[in-house]
Amino acid sequence: MATTQAELNKTAGKPIRCKAAVARKAGEPLVIEEVIVAPPKAHEVRLKIICTSLCHSDFTFWKLKEPACFPRIFGHEAFGVVESVGEDVEDLKEGDSVVPIFLPDCTECIDCTSKKSNVCSKFQFKGSPYMLRDGTSRFTTADGETLYHFVFVSSFAEYTVVDIANVTKIDPCVPPNRACLFSCGVSTGLGAAFKTANVEPGSTVVIFGLGAIGLAVAEGARICGATRIIGVDINSDKFEIGKQFGVTDFVNSNSFGDKPISQLINEMTNGGADYCFECVGLGTVVQEAYACCRKGWGKTIVLGVDKPGADLTFKSFDVLHSGKTLMGSLFGGLKPKSDIPLLVKRYLDKELQLDKFVTHEVSFQDINKAFDLLAQGKSLRCVIWMDK
Amino acid sequence: MATTQAELNKTAGKPIRCKAAVARKAGEPLVIEEVIVAPPKAHEVRLKIICTSLCHSDFTFWKLKEPACFPRIFGHEAFGVVESVGEDVEDLKEGDSVVPIFLPDCTECIDCTSKKSNVCSKFQFKGSPYMLRDGTSRFTTADGETLYHFVFVSSFAEYTVVDIANVTKIDPCVPPNRACLFSCGVSTGLGAAFKTANVEPGSTVVIFGLGAIGLAVAEGARICGATRIIGVDINSDKFEIGKQFGVTDFVNSNSFGDKPISQLINEMTNGGADYCFECVGLGTVVQEAYACCRKGWGKTIVLGVDKPGADLTFKSFDVLHSGKTLMGSLFGGLKPKSDIPLLVKRYLDKELQLDKFVTHEVSFQDINKAFDLLAQGKSLRCVIWMDK
Repeated sequence: MATTQAELNKTAGKPIRCKAAVARKAGEPLVIEEVIVAPPKAHEVRLKIICTSLCHSDFTFWKLKEPACFPRIFGHEAFGVVESVGEDVEDLKEGDSVVPIFLPDCTECIDCTSKKSNVCSKFQFKGSPYMLRDGTSRFTTADGETLYHFVFVSSFAEYTVVDIANVTKIDPCVPPNRACLFSCGVSTGLGAAFKTANVEPGSTVVIFGLGAIGLAVAEGARICGATRIIGVDINSDKFEIGKQFGVTDFVNSNSFGDKPISQLINEMTNGGADYCFECVGLGTVVQEAYACCRKGWGKTIVLGVDKPGADLTFKSFDVLHSGKTLMGSLFGGLKPKSDIPLLVKRYLDKELQLDKFVTHEVSFQDINKAFDLLAQGKSLRCVIWMDK
Repeated sequence: MATTQAELNKTAGKPIRCKAAVARKAGEPLVIEEVIVAPPKAHEVRLKIICTSLCHSDFTFWKLKEPACFPRIFGHEAFGVVESVGEDVEDLKEGDSVVPIFLPDCTECIDCTSKKSNVCSKFQFKGSPYMLRDGTSRFTTADGETLYHFVFVSSFAEYTVVDIANVTKIDPCVPPNRACLFSCGVSTGLGAAFKTANVEPGSTVVIFGLGAIGLAVAEGARICGATRIIGVDINSDKFEIGKQFGVTDFVNSNSFGDKPISQLINEMTNGGADYCFECVGLGTVVQEAYACCRKGWGKTIVLGVDKPGADLTFKSFDVLHSGKTLMGSLFGGLKPKSDIPLLVKRYLDKELQLDKFVTHEVSFQDINKAFDLLAQGKSLRCVIWMDK
């Protein structure tokens, strides 16, 4: 890192005046503004963000008009260095390389100490626009206006404050523009394949939505030994991209008129896939995924984030009679502090290929380009460098 | 058995004139009539029913006005002896003790040869009112009127014809009025606990609906080592009955006004149960079960048979964010021909207690009493003896 201990110590305990990309209205370009980042309180750390990448959830909530929550600092996939720590922080110190993770991991509650759960009981993830523990903001503008946080991270800023439950240390050998990928989307897809679904060798997988999460599912399924990985997307360019991550077959879901995609997949797979992953975030797509996962043992894994309040409806007969399983996979079922280091090891061992996820890199001042690229379906991950 | 080989051989290959309890109109008392039971065709056997028990699905479809399917011979939990066999029947012979099972098990298809599935691909269970293989009836009245079958069994008759895919041999040491329990409901509940959920020792279980299936879930969960088994029912008498099967706590779902039962269970269990079993057959109850199964690892297992066409609706956010699993459990996930003998062994080893399931026994001519007892919630299983 270019940041020295001496530089970090200069700012500890004081507010930091720095740049942030502020979302002031739903769907309107972010504005680079000067903001004041308060020092971390107890159980919090302040991070110097080295780079951040744009995840689809940033995009979804940036566009969301109801319920409106602006002005806000988005961003939740990032790599950073601990600039200073608040009181009662024992496991992190200035200079540590970390990734912030939206999903809290307190390491102490019944869930965080269980191998079976990654849904912390002490700090529940409920989409609060403030800090995890005390429900206030650490961001203000120069004239005192409070800014909202996003999913406890808000990495579209040169500095941010994050609860220790939302920080995972990461081996500093990992390059920053690969480290940030472990922070959300890519980990989610890999975890869904490795942990939630536990994909068996020789199996058939269908992935609805070949964005970065869907492609990470493919990469995970490939490593697990799946022999057929069918990608479904509305953009046929995704087949060539998908092949790099193990996708073997492609279906353009806009190309079959009124014929349900589930029917097509059932025909292609002689009765359904062993695992169907929904990475779009639409109830109708979850229904299609459920309809073409294999009766008897098929698993449908929901990863996509639908609109707040959206319903998921199934036929009761199908649920009872099919022997299928429906599972949600929040952050891929991964436990941030214990599972991310295992993924990082796979990366350092060169088992896991991450390079191809980073299709674009821009400077912080060009952050809106990252939004344009995602909107146009041109990028998988666009890394935004804070210092460049 | 009182039936000798000589007696059986007298009837083989010929139609049998015998008594059956015919349902002529939805919800109206069955009528004991003389019917003609055709000889078994290829891959079929004709059974002499020794005793049959009334399962709630018989009751549900007997009451169903739309789609109407009468005149019909209900009954699908039974114990019988093979009277004669059709062509191409190799594994069964006259005199074999068997239980008919509604769920086909062809033993040959990808599902029937897989350990993971109990949903036969060769013969799909779709509620046809005829024989499994050729879609015709084996029952007529004396004046030639065709009678519908029920779920490939139709055991409310002295003789019935069943496909070999719907028959499982059973150790003749098991008394008939215990053997018939393996035919549907009790096996379903046991299988749901043992196989679909695979209940872990020390876990907390909630069972919605303490009929025979729900109580069999309790018995299975108790054997698996569950330490807390909460029964939910609208009839408080079920608590005393439930205690005999391992139920430790009881909630009368009519006693809490507007407070959702899921909220109550979440309070009782400090955040939800490890396993919730829905044994009622109502979408709203499945929602409640899902809402009070433990985030992070909770499983909701659907056993209840809802009305045809009924929907099951969840909040998309809950599915994604909860880490919960939803599973259907048709016949408890059991493979009829390979798993039922394992349950029978548990019974013969006295690990499994079945006696308490049989609360009433009546003669065939009193079959409508069995319906009355079930309607009044007085019986768990009422065994109907054909010869008495």
